[in-house]
Parts: sequence; structure tokens; C-alpha cells
Amino acid sequence: MKTVKIGLLGLGNIGTGTYKTLEMNREQIEAAAGRQVEITKILEKDVDRERDITVDPRKFTQDPDVIFDDPEIDIVIELLGGIEPASTFMLRALEKGKHVVTANKAAVAANFGRLMKTARERGVEFRFEASVGGGIPILNALTTVLRANQFEEILGILNGTTNYILTQMTENGLAYEDVLKAAQEKGFAEADPTADVEGIDVANKLSILMALAFDLYVAPEDIPTEGITKITKADIDSAAARNCKIKLIASAKKVGDQVAYSVKPVEMPVTHPLAGINNEFNAVFVKGNAVDELMFYGKGAGPLPTGSAVMGDVLEIAKICGRK
Amino acid sequence: MKTVKIGLLGLGNIGTGTYKTLEMNREQIEAAAGRQVEITKILEKDVDRERDITVDPRKFTQDPDVIFDDPEIDIVIELLGGIEPASTFMLRALEKGKHVVTANKAAVAANFGRLMKTARERGVEFRFEASVGGGIPILNALTTVLRANQFEEILGILNGTTNYILTQMTENGLAYEDVLKAAQEKGFAEADPTADVEGIDVANKLSILMALAFDLYVAPEDIPTEGITKITKADIDSAAARNCKIKLIASAKKVGDQVAYSVKPVEMPVTHPLAGINNEFNAVFVKGNAVDELMFYGKGAGPLPTGSAVMGDVLEIAKICGRK
Repeated sequence: MKTVKIGLLGLGNIGTGTYKTLEMNREQIEAAAGRQVEITKILEKDVDRERDITVDPRKFTQDPDVIFDDPEIDIVIELLGGIEPASTFMLRALEKGKHVVTANKAAVAANFGRLMKTARERGVEFRFEASVGGGIPILNALTTVLRANQFEEILGILNGTTNYILTQMTENGLAYEDVLKAAQEKGFAEADPTADVEGIDVANKLSILMALAFDLYVAPEDIPTEGITKITKADIDSAAARNCKIKLIASAKKVGDQVAYSVKPVEMPVTHPLAGINNEFNAVFVKGNAVDELMFYGKGAGPLPTGSAVMGDVLEIAKICGRK
Repeated sequence: MKTVKIGLLGLGNIGTGTYKTLEMNREQIEAAAGRQVEITKILEKDVDRERDITVDPRKFTQDPDVIFDDPEIDIVIELLGGIEPASTFMLRALEKGKHVVTANKAAVAANFGRLMKTARERGVEFRFEASVGGGIPILNALTTVLRANQFEEILGILNGTTNYILTQMTENGLAYEDVLKAAQEKGFAEADPTADVEGIDVANKLSILMALAFDLYVAPEDIPTEGITKITKADIDSAAARNCKIKLIASAKKVGDQVAYSVKPVEMPVTHPLAGINNEFNAVFVKGNAVDELMFYGKGAGPLPTGSAVMGDVLEIAKICGRK
């Protein structure tokens, strides 16, 4: 069968992790896909950057149209991050009849309807498993085998930086500012941590989860969102006195015909499965009317866990291509 | 598009839960499948049993060949339990070109190779998500989107009865015999609990997990298996003194080119995600070389969680039928 050819947009940390996942697990990826899989072109300015992978320099281009106009390319993987130009690039790829895979929660949440509609109209796949919960295969579960449920509630710990900060405050009695500073020094937290600590990153992910689980699109900026910057040691202690832990929770709950949703710090009883999710780990708790309670736990970020989710999407698409 | 027609073998507790899952969630199941879905024939002797569903009595038959010979039936769901006649019935259905879905771990583990081979030769689907972890969609994850990983380790708490007993012994300081007796009185544990407490049920599930994750079939009787009948309060206390909880763990671990496997009570450090899985809940912990640590948690048994998994398999098959 024909090799699946991939154009990759972006070879930063996540792009490198994705490239590496394909290189190190090529045998089982190709066995599962039933076809050979090759990244043939890469949009990236920084050709000379030190990476622990070997890339044929002839694969690099600085012109995205070289990828979109290549009739040999079946799948475009978008790992640029940010809403633009990523959204425009994904739409252009879909319009050119390419399947698209992305890890970009901001772009998917901002342009969910347009991206899905364009993919549907062109009869191509648009997949974004890595955009929510990193390596955790939650989106695939919600949209395939769990579809025999009506979902009643989805709760998520969807940001590693904030969960790390809250865990350290809880377990070691540290103040918010001190943990943030230490996390920044270790490279766990961004120099500008706003998107993480104000809950914006989580709101993007909740927007995507709701669109899939409840068929309800709410723009991230319309989700009531509160971050963790105001959480004090006193809040943590007073939660502990009530046998609770404070977690930054993305919540969507069916109430009659409506869905109530928010992103905010919540006191979770220590008996709740989400209370035990610590440090940089993410988890999604789902309640369905048949399956009852489920929880999915894993690494919500990082080059290889994200690469696992991206390549998982790629191999599912490659299977479908093979059937056609 | 043509309605997907199903023949159901067995309308006991799990069969009734599956029937009910389809009735209560028909709208989203059919939307996801892209087709109408109907259970048209049911193999069941006990026609008059009290069930909280309404079944047209004309659907019942006592002759399995009425189902296998019906050219209208696309999918056979096997929910009889036990190795025989379930295995023979599934093989006959596959040979007749029917897709088969089952929740029957004993039959799948005993006849894995023959069932898979027959399905492959006939070009039909054979799916058994409900056979491991009940409602938890672990098999689908391992065989689809996580396939971009080399699995390094799989650990599971895969039996609700034994996890309930160990949890009650740990949390309430009770003796094994007392918890078992109480569980039997409440109907949580079977009158003959051998398959649960001796780890036989778990060995069946581990056999299936290993066949899928490591492409290594080991018959359940060849898996070193130790149950929980010899666990005493003293064992629980001495584990607690080492900051551990005793759990009945199904384990398969890559060691070089080999896989080491066992079912036995293990002292899990309280910091391990599996240590927090209590009472009747099940969980599967997976380590992959790209995704790192993942855990899937949920209800490992019960009519509706099992029905969720069975109907999830049905809707995935219905999608594939629609594509052909």
C-alpha cells in the first residue's frame, strides 16, 4: 500500500517529540496503520537548532504552501501553537483535501466550528487528541466507544502547571508566589504564566471537551473562568480542615436540558478520585448514564506524551485512508 | 442506510443491561453509528423472567441457528458467560460472516487465537471491550490510539469482589472471612467465590490484555496466579506500616525481550495511583515508552457499565459497516 506522507508544521519541543515518537516506534505504528508512514516536509525556520533527532535538511521549508500544494502529502500535523497563523494554515490544509492533526487547544477552541465544518465538507479527518490532556486518550474515548452514553458530568484537572503549584502548596505548606517562582526557575512554568494560572489554558480545553461530549460549543472567553492566583495557604488549610483539597477544576454538568460550566478552584473531597491527582499530572473524570464514573489519568504535557497522542491520531487516519 | 440488526445470545443481568443501554441511549448510539440499530432476535430460555425492560416476545428463540442462519443479522452479541457453549456459538457466528461482540473473558481468554483467526479469515470484526474492566474503554485505547507506543508495563486491579474485600479489610480492620460473608449476603460476591478470590477471573483478563498489548498469548492457566484467601489482618497491618496497601494485581512487564507476568496480592506504595482504587472499582495502569504513565479507572462490572462497553463495540462496528 501507498506510504502515508506527512507535512509537519513546526519542529519545536512538541514537533521534535512527535518526530521522535515516530522514529522510535515506527514498527508498531506502521503495523497498526497497515502502511508506511513518513514525515516528508517540515515547516520550520530554525533549521540549525540542537535537537536529539536527525532530520534530513532537505525536508525543511519556510513556505507553508510547499506543504499544502504537495499532492503527495496526505496528512498535515500542526504544532505551531497559538491561534494564528495556525488556524489559517489548518483551514488551508483542509481545503486542499489534507487530513489535519493538531495539539493546539487555543486554535481548536477558537475556531472549532469552522475547522470541523471544513473537514466535513472536504471529506477529510480533523483530529486533535493531544489538545486536551496531552497523552491521555480522552477525546477518542468520548467520540467513539463511550458514545453509547449520555454524558452527565465532565470534570477535569487539565493544566499541569497549576496542579503542580496547588500540590506543592498543599503538601509542603508553601505560598503561591514561592512555588510559582521555583517552578519558573525549573522551567515547569512559563516566564509569563498568565494563560496557565488564570485558567485560560483550561478554558480552551473545556471548550473542546464540551463541544465533543455535549455537542455544545461555547467560546473559551464565554466560559466563567477563575484562576489560582488568589489561593492562599489559609484557603488550603481551611479546605484541609473540611477533608478537601483545592484543585483547579474544569467542570461541565448537565442540569436538565442545560449544561452548567466553569473553570475555577474547587474544594474536592479527598475521597473523590480527582483529589488524588498530584503535581504535573492531568485527569478527566466522566460520568455517563450507562458507564457511570470513569477517570482517565496521565501526563497532560511534554514532548513524548503529546507525540504519543499526535501519532495515535495519525495512525487512526492512516487506517481509514487504507480502507478507502 | 440499512438498519444494523443484532442477534443477542443471553438476556440475563448483562444482557438486560445491554438491551437497556440501547433503549435509553438509542438516539446518540444511532447518531454515532450513522444507522438505526435494532436487536431483532434473542436466544434465551427464560422468556417470562421479570426484567425492567419491555421485549417483544416474538424476538425470543431457543435455537441459536435461527440467529446464525438469519442473513439479516449483522452482529451477534454473546452474553451467555462461561467457556462453552459460548465459544462454539461465537465461532459459528463468525464463520457465518457475522461480526461478534462479547463480554465473556473466560471464552475470549480460552480461545483467543481461534476466535481472532476466524474473524480475520471471514473479514468480520470481533470485539470484546466489556471483557476487561467492564465499562472502562481500555482495550479500545490499547488497540487504537495508544498503538503509537511500545508498552513497558501493564498493571491492573481487575476484579471488583476482591478489591472490595481488600478495601474493607484495610479500611475497617475486618477479617477476610467476615468481609466475604457480608459481601455474599449483599450479593456482591458469588455463593461460590472461587473464580474471584483465587484470581482466576483476573488471570483471564490479564491473558486478554497481554495478547493485545504485547502480542503475546498466554493461556490463563499458564499465568502464575495467587488469590487473596491467605491475606490476613496482620499482612494488611504490616503493609500499612511500610506505607503500602495490599491489592490483587494483574501484572505484565517487559523485561528485555521477554514479558514477566503474574496475578498476585502486591503491596502497592500509597503514592502509586492504583493504591487509591477502592471497593468495587477497577483500574488499569499502563506505561508506554512515549505516553509514559496512564491510568484508566471505572466500574469493572454491573449491567449498565458492561452494557456501555458492549454497545460501544456495536457502534464502532456499525460505523465500519457503513463505510463498506
